[in-house]
Amino acid sequence: MTAEETGRDAQPWGEVTPDAARRLLVAAVEAFAERGYHATTTRDIASRAGMSPAALYIHYKTKEELLHRISRIGHDKALDILRTAADGTGTPAERLAVAVRSFVGWHAAQHTTARVVQYELDALGESARAEIVALRRRTDGVIRELVDDGVRAGEFDVADPAGTTVAVLSLCIDVARWFNVGGRRTPDEVGALYAELVLRMVGFRGDPAEVAGAQK
Amino acid sequence: MTAEETGRDAQPWGEVTPDAARRLLVAAVEAFAERGYHATTTRDIASRAGMSPAALYIHYKTKEELLHRISRIGHDKALDILRTAADGTGTPAERLAVAVRSFVGWHAAQHTTARVVQYELDALGESARAEIVALRRRTDGVIRELVDDGVRAGEFDVADPAGTTVAVLSLCIDVARWFNVGGRRTPDEVGALYAELVLRMVGFRGDPAEVAGAQK
Repeated sequence: MTAEETGRDAQPWGEVTPDAARRLLVAAVEAFAERGYHATTTRDIASRAGMSPAALYIHYKTKEELLHRISRIGHDKALDILRTAADGTGTPAERLAVAVRSFVGWHAAQHTTARVVQYELDALGESARAEIVALRRRTDGVIRELVDDGVRAGEFDVADPAGTTVAVLSLCIDVARWFNVGGRRTPDEVGALYAELVLRMVGFRGDPAEVAGAQK
Repeated sequence: MTAEETGRDAQPWGEVTPDAARRLLVAAVEAFAERGYHATTTRDIASRAGMSPAALYIHYKTKEELLHRISRIGHDKALDILRTAADGTGTPAERLAVAVRSFVGWHAAQHTTARVVQYELDALGESARAEIVALRRRTDGVIRELVDDGVRAGEFDVADPAGTTVAVLSLCIDVARWFNVGGRRTPDEVGALYAELVLRMVGFRGDPAEVAGAQK
């Protein structure tokens, strides 16, 4: 992982204090992304953060607690990004375009975190998992609401709103799997392309390129 | 994992002989999917297959060799499915719809294998990885060719063929992440929905629902 990438991934943890707790979360994200949750020990995480295992236990009782915090913060952030876009001004198409663009931009820029958050869900214990699943339902709900708004307004033509909502979110989330920091496109360029593709998926009756390319 | 699911995942390994080598591959897929590649030992795999570690070494020298075989077979199968659909008869839209429907159906039905194949790529050694990356380029190439065919024939309206190709494949592949055997849709139902959504993404000028819903 490059320094730039680490720096980017470190940003979303600004709300975690004190500094030692934040460094441990960043170290855990990197370790889980590289070797998987099950192959990572709390000792690995402490050592990446330049701390002793005893120092780790002051902040997190178990490895699962670290994964839970990461997953919770990641899902909160994703929901917040969608919610902000959905609650903005504009037509349903404009709001859906902004939502997709921001959501995709986040999954591209924070792809290491997003991968851990998406792929290690099964490792969470029952109650943590239930909490995250509830957050995902709310995320689905925001996109579904935008789709329904557009249909009601006569802007979209959607035969299967539930299935289309799943597909739209899936398309956006999978950016975290394939996005490459050294690739040809910036996170925002991928976001703008995806906003256009999503407007096509919902059968937007206007010009998808024009709405998707508008400045945020 | 249910017996039914295991049975489904066991099918694609029909070409692996002898029976012991096949049982070990199936066990490895299950173990990697559950705990991740790095947290799985060859002992775990042998024991799942009801064999001794020594018996495993007769067939596979290393854990990486198992992952490489799984990844190779999975990618070959995915490419073969796309190639068969793309080389079939019909208009570009019809061929793209069949390709997406079969590819998605496979990723849904074989989701455990597909997840391992997609998420454990980084664990492969350099030469194995290069081989798989080359197979992926050919997979991308098949979709790209169908997109270009449709544009040339005046059936599709695509502003960014490279980006749209990446998005189409990504949408299909991510089915392996979210598909749930106990969910409301069968693999083929998801495939039919996705064929329609992909025809919308490429700006198909005909009726996407009609072409996507046609019997294969």
